[in-house]
Amino acid sequence: MTKQEYLSRTIEHLDLNTFNPVTLVDGMDAMAFQARNLSRAAQIYDRMLGDQETCVYLTLAGSLISAGLKKVIVQLLENNMVDAIVSTGANIVDQDFFEALGFKHYVGTPFVDDTKMRELMIDRIYDTFIDEEDLRICDDVIGHICNHVLERRPYTSREFIVEMGRFLESDEKYAPYRKDSIVYTAYKKGVPIFCPAFSDCSAGFGFVMHRNDNPTGPHVTIDTAGDFWELTQTKLRNPESGLLMIGGGVPKNFIQDVVVATEVIGQDAPMHKYAIQITVADERDGALSGSTLKEACSWGKVDVVYEQMVFSEATVALPLIAGYGYHKKSWVGRPERRFNDIFEKAPVAR
Amino acid sequence: MTKQEYLSRTIEHLDLNTFNPVTLVDGMDAMAFQARNLSRAAQIYDRMLGDQETCVYLTLAGSLISAGLKKVIVQLLENNMVDAIVSTGANIVDQDFFEALGFKHYVGTPFVDDTKMRELMIDRIYDTFIDEEDLRICDDVIGHICNHVLERRPYTSREFIVEMGRFLESDEKYAPYRKDSIVYTAYKKGVPIFCPAFSDCSAGFGFVMHRNDNPTGPHVTIDTAGDFWELTQTKLRNPESGLLMIGGGVPKNFIQDVVVATEVIGQDAPMHKYAIQITVADERDGALSGSTLKEACSWGKVDVVYEQMVFSEATVALPLIAGYGYHKKSWVGRPERRFNDIFEKAPVAR
Amino acid sequence: MTKQEYLSRTIEHLDLNTFNPVTLVDGMDAMAFQARNLSRAAQIYDRMLGDQETCVYLTLAGSLISAGLKKVIVQLLENNMVDAIVSTGANIVDQDFFEALGFKHYVGTPFVDDTKMRELMIDRIYDTFIDEEDLRICDDVIGHICNHVLERRPYTSREFIVEMGRFLESDEKYAPYRKDSIVYTAYKKGVPIFCPAFSDCSAGFGFVMHRNDNPTGPHVTIDTAGDFWELTQTKLRNPESGLLMIGGGVPKNFIQDVVVATEVIGQDAPMHKYAIQITVADERDGALSGSTLKEACSWGKVDVVYEQMVFSEATVALPLIAGYGYHKKSWVGRPERRFNDIFEKAPVAR
Amino acid sequence: MTKQEYLSRTIEHLDLNTFNPVTLVDGMDAMAFQARNLSRAAQIYDRMLGDQETCVYLTLAGSLISAGLKKVIVQLLENNMVDAIVSTGANIVDQDFFEALGFKHYVGTPFVDDTKMRELMIDRIYDTFIDEEDLRICDDVIGHICNHVLERRPYTSREFIVEMGRFLESDEKYAPYRKDSIVYTAYKKGVPIFCPAFSDCSAGFGFVMHRNDNPTGPHVTIDTAGDFWELTQTKLRNPESGLLMIGGGVPKNFIQDVVVATEVIGQDAPMHKYAIQITVADERDGALSGSTLKEACSWGKVDVVYEQMVFSEATVALPLIAGYGYHKKSWVGRPERRFNDIFEKAPVAR
Repeated sequence: MTKQEYLSRTIEHLDLNTFNPVTLVDGMDAMAFQARNLSRAAQIYDRMLGDQETCVYLTLAGSLISAGLKKVIVQLLENNMVDAIVSTGANIVDQDFFEALGFKHYVGTPFVDDTKMRELMIDRIYDTFIDEEDLRICDDVIGHICNHVLERRPYTSREFIVEMGRFLESDEKYAPYRKDSIVYTAYKKGVPIFCPAFSDCSAGFGFVMHRNDNPTGPHVTIDTAGDFWELTQTKLRNPESGLLMIGGGVPKNFIQDVVVATEVIGQDAPMHKYAIQITVADERDGALSGSTLKEACSWGKVDVVYEQMVFSEATVALPLIAGYGYHKKSWVGRPERRFNDIFEKAPVAR
Repeated sequence: MTKQEYLSRTIEHLDLNTFNPVTLVDGMDAMAFQARNLSRAAQIYDRMLGDQETCVYLTLAGSLISAGLKKVIVQLLENNMVDAIVSTGANIVDQDFFEALGFKHYVGTPFVDDTKMRELMIDRIYDTFIDEEDLRICDDVIGHICNHVLERRPYTSREFIVEMGRFLESDEKYAPYRKDSIVYTAYKKGVPIFCPAFSDCSAGFGFVMHRNDNPTGPHVTIDTAGDFWELTQTKLRNPESGLLMIGGGVPKNFIQDVVVATEVIGQDAPMHKYAIQITVADERDGALSGSTLKEACSWGKVDVVYEQMVFSEATVALPLIAGYGYHKKSWVGRPERRFNDIFEKAPVAR
Repeated sequence: MTKQEYLSRTIEHLDLNTFNPVTLVDGMDAMAFQARNLSRAAQIYDRMLGDQETCVYLTLAGSLISAGLKKVIVQLLENNMVDAIVSTGANIVDQDFFEALGFKHYVGTPFVDDTKMRELMIDRIYDTFIDEEDLRICDDVIGHICNHVLERRPYTSREFIVEMGRFLESDEKYAPYRKDSIVYTAYKKGVPIFCPAFSDCSAGFGFVMHRNDNPTGPHVTIDTAGDFWELTQTKLRNPESGLLMIGGGVPKNFIQDVVVATEVIGQDAPMHKYAIQITVADERDGALSGSTLKEACSWGKVDVVYEQMVFSEATVALPLIAGYGYHKKSWVGRPERRFNDIFEKAPVAR
Repeated sequence: MTKQEYLSRTIEHLDLNTFNPVTLVDGMDAMAFQARNLSRAAQIYDRMLGDQETCVYLTLAGSLISAGLKKVIVQLLENNMVDAIVSTGANIVDQDFFEALGFKHYVGTPFVDDTKMRELMIDRIYDTFIDEEDLRICDDVIGHICNHVLERRPYTSREFIVEMGRFLESDEKYAPYRKDSIVYTAYKKGVPIFCPAFSDCSAGFGFVMHRNDNPTGPHVTIDTAGDFWELTQTKLRNPESGLLMIGGGVPKNFIQDVVVATEVIGQDAPMHKYAIQITVADERDGALSGSTLKEACSWGKVDVVYEQMVFSEATVALPLIAGYGYHKKSWVGRPERRFNDIFEKAPVAR
């Protein structure tokens, strides 16, 4: 098979308007196991949307955007169903920003010879293919932004991602693609996106280029301590909060830690009042990704009244949970938080 | 039960000198399933230690240090069986540095009421307990280092962790504890430790304190882009490389990406020649942690001649794999790489 | 809490008429990971229903009936969407027949003290409760059927389960409950149910009672070799076949082995043409439950053109897959197979 | 590659005499997660061996014998460290009896084209290969035993497996192979082996042949109800009991149910006093295999004082646990139970 044949069918993003899972999810409430857990999680999400005092943090870990969940998340943003995002870098840069530049992901298969994929410059994410030549262009764009658009100073990842949104707005050639972009929609809606490990993705390659192109400093740098400070400010601005966590990893830990951060600076904000997590990890290896929300309570991070773990792969569970929240419409009238405005006057990262 | 009763039995770290698993691991080679995979992984680790051209990167994700694996990793460091470490922040700060300050982890149980734990200020990691009052002191020490020891400028996480080692050396009251510390041993041996998401742990609380104590900048900041640049320099210094990965997450991604980073700046280093990963994650959710090393080959990151996934919880598998490498002694005569010396003259992060 | 309080909310069975997942499942087809796998599995199920030559075997492992999936399976039976069932004993006797006697399962929680449950005679299945006093009555009914209804001779499990259906029909007091029963619906529709490990459930207790009550033989016995013979006859009667497998275990193995059985007696039937399995198990421990359908191909059991594993807990995935098949209506006009009629004249088990 | 090349390296069985894991396992006791669980499980196994009142039931599920664990289990039998076995059929017939006939399993790989394997008549178990032509001979031997050795009457699986042992003894050509056989060693030691789903393996093919060769009855049949009765008798003979469970499935359920069976016939035996299970399954799908031993307590089957789940693939964990028990030598002086003698006078199955 040729490269073109491998890259012949594109991933299409699911649209919450094409299905309504409310009766199904409600029917799962009196079942057992993960159906009941999923139903309860959906109800908690709906409840937090209806609780006008509560801001909603969404965390993203795992290859969610390449898997067809981009539009779902954009729809949550557009309808004020999410007020801030904490994500791994790959979802935001390699996958969302990548598609906003006009590139695509492709339906693939795990049953291939990876050495052949390497020769063809096709990158594989389980059953999904990416044209590595496209991805290199994405790296270059980040390098270009560092070299030619930004000041040579520390940026938080949030601040940098705002600039990525601004970049997409700056050139009309991106217009057909940016409208379905998380980075761009969040930029327009003032929703902050934090990537606490921002070098750990295509952005990292851009930063390495930037440094290589500019052997002497100062450089554009990413201030991860500033990220945590900024995230803490959002929690102080809107103390009541709920978590919709997809996967675990750094995003889960980061958003949970923010409660402790407010204590550390003597401005105790309450524990996260609502918390749901979709994950396939379990608790028995003691790792953070599968640790229960009850365990998080021992750390003072999450309250246990409205918490629910859902043991499911995200591409199956998120459409049901997000679709439930969307079609129940408790979010109608929910205000925009525009947390990005907090940081507009002066950069935090320095 | 009182807090003192809950915190009555300490976690003790396994010592590679107390057991020799070589005949067991060799016997597993002609078995099947994970026994055979584990045996093959141990042989690959032994092989990379015997290949004098190859530098060894160790990645740490999951709560490994609190689980009793600290001494094993210190022994790998002491015997030049590891040349650089990429880790989650918690292993390095909340767990290793924490114990180097004189604190302990405790044998606990998952079968407790977490709301009671919260009241007692006992933090739980699955079946392990931590005194949160101790952990707050650890946060304070990081804040103190920021406020009083360091210059107000960007640091890479590696550079900051070197300073944590120097701090442990600066006060003899830490002498009884620091000798078994990863941070301290790496500091003495010139072995770099990278935490690409360095705010995502107790260090983050220290940084928040520092900013709160010093409302106007400049601040000590953490330059995660600089981390990736520095890691890339180690790969360029010693192009042949092998990976011993415990868990997945950011550390796995970060060290794999370094190969691409060398290409991006036109100095193509070879793929990682050897790679083993211990994980309970599987590939079917498309997330990075469970993605196979064959998949990494499609990305041009890992060669497939000597690669092996081991599906096992790390506290069981690492003693066998590290113990095999240790007792086979192929590492005898292996040189110190002292990668930290590369960066000694001038700070990279700026 | 009292026993009554623990047993206050009953499990309610999901009804395929209350939701239509077709657009959702179709939308998952161009996504990735398990969404795509689930979509493909649903399409394969729809395809096998539309292939009039093909008979459909359903396998059940795991606590599916107590979890609220009983009505879904009854609806598959009623609409000729399943032609034979192979199951663990618990689903058929402890859960379905149990409810047909008028008993209920209850919404519970895993966060209880099991020693207290034992004292209250409440049996727990993860998050579901059962009144053990009810279950003992179910055991007694099986003992009664052995002692007073049946001949003292070997029965296949299929034959015995037909008698359980007849028993439910014999007394009008079961009328309100039996209409939603798998055992009863299958009895009326002539659909055989095989439990290859039939003692491994409440039935086993009935058999033990029967033997205890009748110290000298002959006894009602269960001929598991006869089960395999009978199952083989169904495959010979209708050689083209498809598999809808929920969980793995003995039912999965049993129905796959039937292909080899036809070869062993020189009447080679084709491999199963279609096969889908919903499971959370993975292949890395070499156990049957998680073994891939491709692996089954090496054994000559399953063809690989239309096969799909779905990594999901069944309470979440089955409603989507069965609901897709139901609402696509390719089953309209599909004939009843009434495999039970093959065995009507003379008992096989002897 | 030719068939011969695929089948060139045989699986070799691990020998408990070649390694001593006692210090390693003891060192794991003050660690966390599965290391601590494994250590505690090993200590419980050692404790039940030292408790002279307690009989030990071993359960086997998963492809353990083909994976190289045969000799370990034979060594447990030889040293009176196991008093009865409940197993899936495949371990006993397709794998152990198969090797006792002189056949072998082969080191393979999951990375093959299974349609090619089918053409070559190579059966695959994850990373292990079997010559299907050998396996067909094994089926034939079972058919031969039914046709020519046994009476035409119901047998329990236990009784049948005793006959398989006797068959191995009857011909000196099996002498080189039978000495390492579980079936043969158990036969010599009077240790019963129960396979509650005895048709669900190579034996099933033998039974189908037998029926096909003898169209009119009576036939050799397998009485699974009799199995449960016999198993119950062993519990009544020696009421104090402990469980060493490898994997879950039917064997786990069957041995746990035996406690209830004694109650059902009014001869209440105590719950299993000790219980350990090695499994990769977890509890969140509500299936039996991953259900916790605490959950089993709610059913009155297992006591909770000495119970331990170990989350590990068996080929890694069993050598450590069995090796610990073996080298601690608490079994020295433990009597043979010879449960088979209970049933010698008259067959139960009828």
